[in-house]
Amino acid sequence: MVESPTPKKELEDLQEDLHKVQELLRRHRLVESLVHNQDPPRQDRAESPGYKQNETALRDKLERMHPADIAYVLEALRLDERIILWDLVKAERDGEILLEVSDAVRETLIESMDPAELVAAAEQLDTDELADLVPDLPQGVIQDVFQSLPLEEREQLRAAMSYPEDAVGALMDFEFVTVREDVTLATVTRYLRRFDELPDHTDQIFVVDREEILKGVLPLARLIVGDLDDTVAGVMVTDTITLYADDNAQQAAQAFERYGLVSAAVVDEPGKLVGRLTVDRVVDYIRSKSESELLTANGLKEEEDIFSSVWASVRNRWSWLAINLITAFMASRVISNFEGSIVKLVALAALMPIVAGIGGNSGNQTITMIVRAFALGQIQIEQAKELFAKELGVALANGLIWGGILGLLAWGLYSSIALGMVMMLAITLNLLLAAIMGVLIPVVLLHFGRDPALGSSVMITACTDSGGVFIFLGLATLILI
Amino acid sequence: MVESPTPKKELEDLQEDLHKVQELLRRHRLVESLVHNQDPPRQDRAESPGYKQNETALRDKLERMHPADIAYVLEALRLDERIILWDLVKAERDGEILLEVSDAVRETLIESMDPAELVAAAEQLDTDELADLVPDLPQGVIQDVFQSLPLEEREQLRAAMSYPEDAVGALMDFEFVTVREDVTLATVTRYLRRFDELPDHTDQIFVVDREEILKGVLPLARLIVGDLDDTVAGVMVTDTITLYADDNAQQAAQAFERYGLVSAAVVDEPGKLVGRLTVDRVVDYIRSKSESELLTANGLKEEEDIFSSVWASVRNRWSWLAINLITAFMASRVISNFEGSIVKLVALAALMPIVAGIGGNSGNQTITMIVRAFALGQIQIEQAKELFAKELGVALANGLIWGGILGLLAWGLYSSIALGMVMMLAITLNLLLAAIMGVLIPVVLLHFGRDPALGSSVMITACTDSGGVFIFLGLATLILI
Repeated sequence: MVESPTPKKELEDLQEDLHKVQELLRRHRLVESLVHNQDPPRQDRAESPGYKQNETALRDKLERMHPADIAYVLEALRLDERIILWDLVKAERDGEILLEVSDAVRETLIESMDPAELVAAAEQLDTDELADLVPDLPQGVIQDVFQSLPLEEREQLRAAMSYPEDAVGALMDFEFVTVREDVTLATVTRYLRRFDELPDHTDQIFVVDREEILKGVLPLARLIVGDLDDTVAGVMVTDTITLYADDNAQQAAQAFERYGLVSAAVVDEPGKLVGRLTVDRVVDYIRSKSESELLTANGLKEEEDIFSSVWASVRNRWSWLAINLITAFMASRVISNFEGSIVKLVALAALMPIVAGIGGNSGNQTITMIVRAFALGQIQIEQAKELFAKELGVALANGLIWGGILGLLAWGLYSSIALGMVMMLAITLNLLLAAIMGVLIPVVLLHFGRDPALGSSVMITACTDSGGVFIFLGLATLILI
Repeated sequence: MVESPTPKKELEDLQEDLHKVQELLRRHRLVESLVHNQDPPRQDRAESPGYKQNETALRDKLERMHPADIAYVLEALRLDERIILWDLVKAERDGEILLEVSDAVRETLIESMDPAELVAAAEQLDTDELADLVPDLPQGVIQDVFQSLPLEEREQLRAAMSYPEDAVGALMDFEFVTVREDVTLATVTRYLRRFDELPDHTDQIFVVDREEILKGVLPLARLIVGDLDDTVAGVMVTDTITLYADDNAQQAAQAFERYGLVSAAVVDEPGKLVGRLTVDRVVDYIRSKSESELLTANGLKEEEDIFSSVWASVRNRWSWLAINLITAFMASRVISNFEGSIVKLVALAALMPIVAGIGGNSGNQTITMIVRAFALGQIQIEQAKELFAKELGVALANGLIWGGILGLLAWGLYSSIALGMVMMLAITLNLLLAAIMGVLIPVVLLHFGRDPALGSSVMITACTDSGGVFIFLGLATLILI
């Protein structure tokens, strides 16, 4: 056991593997290009000793690696090296590895495969895994894959693919063990002993009747400690969490987290068992959800392959820049309406970005708090009034504190007490605006059934940028000019 | 089973529970205040029928709820209602519930309890759970808790508390089943049947020798399908992931995710089994990690109780506002150096926020990509050169496209082709600055062993704000004035 991997060693090991693979690839390509330049017939090239030797070393290395680790190495390789390595991976592992890599890298791998290879890779997968891969396959290949499946699996695949990405149905699998409630634990034990192995993440088996209606679950832990003469009905658990295939995956993930589940049954409307959701899929879902939130918050449409082309990156990032330019342009038009005031008192130009900036920061804090509380179901729209009161209070306090400090600074720098007062008043008013919009935007988005996590940040920044310079320059014009 | 909860129904149920509880609380307080105003002796008050009836209804309701669900209700209640409800929760459930609520709410609950209640609550918990709760308890209570523990548990608690929050040791538990490798599966089965129940999340039992050195693991699924005459040594798995107590929890979480683990053994340096990490703790860790990243990204120090006081919120949010004001103030000082140019060409004041804004957005995109790739271990510091090249390419492309569009707009609005050229050039240069700093900041932070996810965003915004206005106003002064 001393030699078994630990995560720390494991990451180092992985990076060592990566360097080894890169080294081998480099030598491999050197040999290949030498051989290639002399342009010998193809079979000679493959038989050249250096070529063969490196290829064998690489294949050996790959054979001993877990599919998730090969996926890691593929992600970290430049495109050309990635494709060479991919060709060396044993064909029967292609499917598993394609499931593990990110979307951007999966695309590059699929592009390098011909239809027959893709069909072969797909055939190694379970139906629920196939449902994740199929949408990325070329149209012609999808049809071949469907035709290669037995009827039952074809129906399962069609069902799994019919659910939106965020539904439990898209995450569930079809591998589970069922028993009847009138048999004894001894019978169940004998029955299970006939299996070569149980499906992964089997912490409980499902109890169904003749119509496959779910009657309860039998945790393996209960089976193991239970009396062999007891019936399943006497030992099974009936008040357990069950999911519907069209339940929202986010809510299912919350249930897994809240109750510490390892697996849960998925049933249809009459209560028939149709699938199973396991914690590993839930963990993947939580991770990918939080990653996509991070990317979206910074206007990145999807995960970027770090070695992707400049052009692919420009396309991935353009929409956020465009939206932000539009809001900046709006603020710019507001400023240009006060050009007269700025010429008379040029200090305004230097001070206005401060007023706009603090409003944006404060508004984003409010939105973060509120979107989170809504997402956790801790507040309802009806509580908006209480939230308004609190956020206005926070804004007022912050406005007086920070506005006061900056007002003093402005007074000191420009020797104008009136300018200092305008500064303080403008910051306070912009923070109040930020608080109002910070509550209002998510509440309105929710009211119209939209996800308040998307777009709230851009909207609040637009409000506080344009609003902030308008308030500041407007007040200054009224009071100072 | 038709009546069993599903997540969707469950959330609705929870919200119904919440409303029911609030309704009961309101009536409860109404009765109490009526009784209270007449100021009868205390026992009369408690015996008044309306009071008693509501209290019973509430207690019944609470008794049937899962601790995690009671925690949810407590989070969603105003402080006064929360305390009333908390007093009604059965004392023997206090400990579990305290573990489930957020830090901010936990603080309010602990404040309302006297030392004896806190010690009693702590005594209900396992050592690993206690390690989470103890840091929030008053000093005197901690000593009482320690003294109430048996020696072995006291040592476990001390050990668990000695690990930093982000270490595997802080997340592991001490409940696991061990067997010797030379016994048969039949013996193991008989041994396990003597348990009333197995510890939660037992998907495997650990195989140790006399010195408690870990030799392998025996998955329950293998035990169940295995031949009863086989020995444990013949069936156990030896190439499994093991953790050290001081391993980083983030890396352990990645291992759980990568290999779909339900539990893993935690060993010390000589290989002795000291604890166990389970997937439910890992899921909690992943969730709390991604939440704290979201909060940190918006400058919120901690989760805010939505009903906390204005003053608590101001304190939670102040540091981010302060830092951002400092960077905005720096940009303001840069602008004030160009007041002469602005007075001569006031359009500069209106256009400069656009240049600064697009730099900040673009820089944050670069940082998000790069911090993520480093965190996943996909790139090393040595690859910085390749990243620079790519990000500079993206910045140049974006600069020419968006700079071009805004240059045309500026030309159109202010009828000055030179101003349009300055605009385009300044946007391009600021995007290049953003790309350079967007790669450099995380690389430098990493080089000095700091977490690049913290503070990168503030730094890049400071660079692009001050840099952007400096580039734009400087170019304008050179070319136009």
